[in-house]
Amino acid sequence: MSDAIPPKLDIEALGRFLSAEFSQAYHPGSGLVIEEVWHGGARVRQRFRDDLIRPGGTMSGPTMMALADFAMYCAVLAAIGPVPLAVTISFSINFLRRPAQRDLLAEARLFKLGKRLAVGEVTIRSEGDEEPVAHVTATYSVPPRELR
Amino acid sequence: MSDAIPPKLDIEALGRFLSAEFSQAYHPGSGLVIEEVWHGGARVRQRFRDDLIRPGGTMSGPTMMALADFAMYCAVLAAIGPVPLAVTISFSINFLRRPAQRDLLAEARLFKLGKRLAVGEVTIRSEGDEEPVAHVTATYSVPPRELR
Amino acid sequence: MSDAIPPKLDIEALGRFLSAEFSQAYHPGSGLVIEEVWHGGARVRQRFRDDLIRPGGTMSGPTMMALADFAMYCAVLAAIGPVPLAVTISFSINFLRRPAQRDLLAEARLFKLGKRLAVGEVTIRSEGDEEPVAHVTATYSVPPRELR
Amino acid sequence: MSDAIPPKLDIEALGRFLSAEFSQAYHPGSGLVIEEVWHGGARVRQRFRDDLIRPGGTMSGPTMMALADFAMYCAVLAAIGPVPLAVTISFSINFLRRPAQRDLLAEARLFKLGKRLAVGEVTIRSEGDEEPVAHVTATYSVPPRELR
Repeated sequence: MSDAIPPKLDIEALGRFLSAEFSQAYHPGSGLVIEEVWHGGARVRQRFRDDLIRPGGTMSGPTMMALADFAMYCAVLAAIGPVPLAVTISFSINFLRRPAQRDLLAEARLFKLGKRLAVGEVTIRSEGDEEPVAHVTATYSVPPRELR
Repeated sequence: MSDAIPPKLDIEALGRFLSAEFSQAYHPGSGLVIEEVWHGGARVRQRFRDDLIRPGGTMSGPTMMALADFAMYCAVLAAIGPVPLAVTISFSINFLRRPAQRDLLAEARLFKLGKRLAVGEVTIRSEGDEEPVAHVTATYSVPPRELR
Repeated sequence: MSDAIPPKLDIEALGRFLSAEFSQAYHPGSGLVIEEVWHGGARVRQRFRDDLIRPGGTMSGPTMMALADFAMYCAVLAAIGPVPLAVTISFSINFLRRPAQRDLLAEARLFKLGKRLAVGEVTIRSEGDEEPVAHVTATYSVPPRELR
Repeated sequence: MSDAIPPKLDIEALGRFLSAEFSQAYHPGSGLVIEEVWHGGARVRQRFRDDLIRPGGTMSGPTMMALADFAMYCAVLAAIGPVPLAVTISFSINFLRRPAQRDLLAEARLFKLGKRLAVGEVTIRSEGDEEPVAHVTATYSVPPRELR
């Protein structure tokens, strides 16, 4: 995943694509902010939202799962372009620490971008903390080049 | 997981506990319905909701993840009782088929209920279909007996 | 995975294929015995071997991983025929209980046999015990039909 | 996982412990070489061995699984000391690329070292290649401090 290759979608183009295609997940009230994209990765913020918390006041497991899936999806799209057919085929998360009552930052990084599969990891941290709160690996099916 | 052992919480008691402790996930508008609980398992329905769909009109990956986590949580609580301290420590999902535009049914089954860890699987189907749309394995940390 | 469909390879044909193609894993000294195959599944035995144990005298984690991978591979081959190109793309195991000092039995079952991917689970038990000692989910890449 | 903390076992001490306790996995003929250990991580080599290959002449999936489990075990022991009770509780591997016909290098890194659980990742590369051939996440149960 060379840094020398520009992403096929920049933040603005990615945001427009996702607003159009994934408005259920990515809309003005979602609290999701795409902060950076590059060839092979993306960093996404989930703003703290009172309606996403679990007892104890920290953001819930499913909130972190949705955030990680979204971050990986951004990384995949940045690498393959605005292709609506990429789908998650597997997703594994380890919850490591209780998050703080703050925004979550998810950084996705692709291990592999193959002809059919993209595989990567996402590390989630509470803003301002070094130690991760969760780690994800996920695999996406990407359409063959001739369909893109 | 013998069928002879009654669950420590029946559907009503489980519903009351979750409404009080997990009202962000389980509330009248969530579309989640606990259909059956037994010692070592639970079956939960996610009613079809227009706001949970992805392009193509079927329910999204994060919706299935949240449903499976909820179903496993019900199975764990039914086995250990109304203990607010059980937390997900790992969660792995394989997406198998595109779900239908119908309710989803998730059946959770514990493989193991240990002193510290509960491990199990969840199979998700579209209502009326035999073939699963997703399969999950998940591990929960359960509080030691003396804290329950 | 209908029981009405016969496997494309029976035990003898599968054994011949694996002896030829996977002699490093499946050879007379391996202790692996294919006990049953059907469309969508397989049951394999790992005979107890002193050189596969870990401290405490029970069979090691990597032994169980290799057994599960082998059992899933048998299930995939029984479903698609003698195709040497199927490769494991992901493999997840939960260790549930310490195995007994006895043979291990692994039962593999496919959740999905798609055009490109086969996904399934393996449950491993010590012979004579009901409770599983480990549970695996795994995904295999299968060659497109025109290459088989 | 601060670099400032020395490992509780250096390479020699770790090697002696593993030769005594895990001689089935770690013995002169195994081809496993502990190359470096630090607080929170370890790097281990699997020398190329003809008896570990699969068709095509590259090292097999179960060989990579055993290598990753061994590397994580080294990282856990380096962090907690020579405690024979640490056991793998879950292990997930993604196979990314076909390895070369060369030694494999596995680098393990702990995400978390808790009171009861250690969680980490392992990246496996063929010697001389930048791109990973496999990526693993694994969780180990560690004995409570008072038993160490």
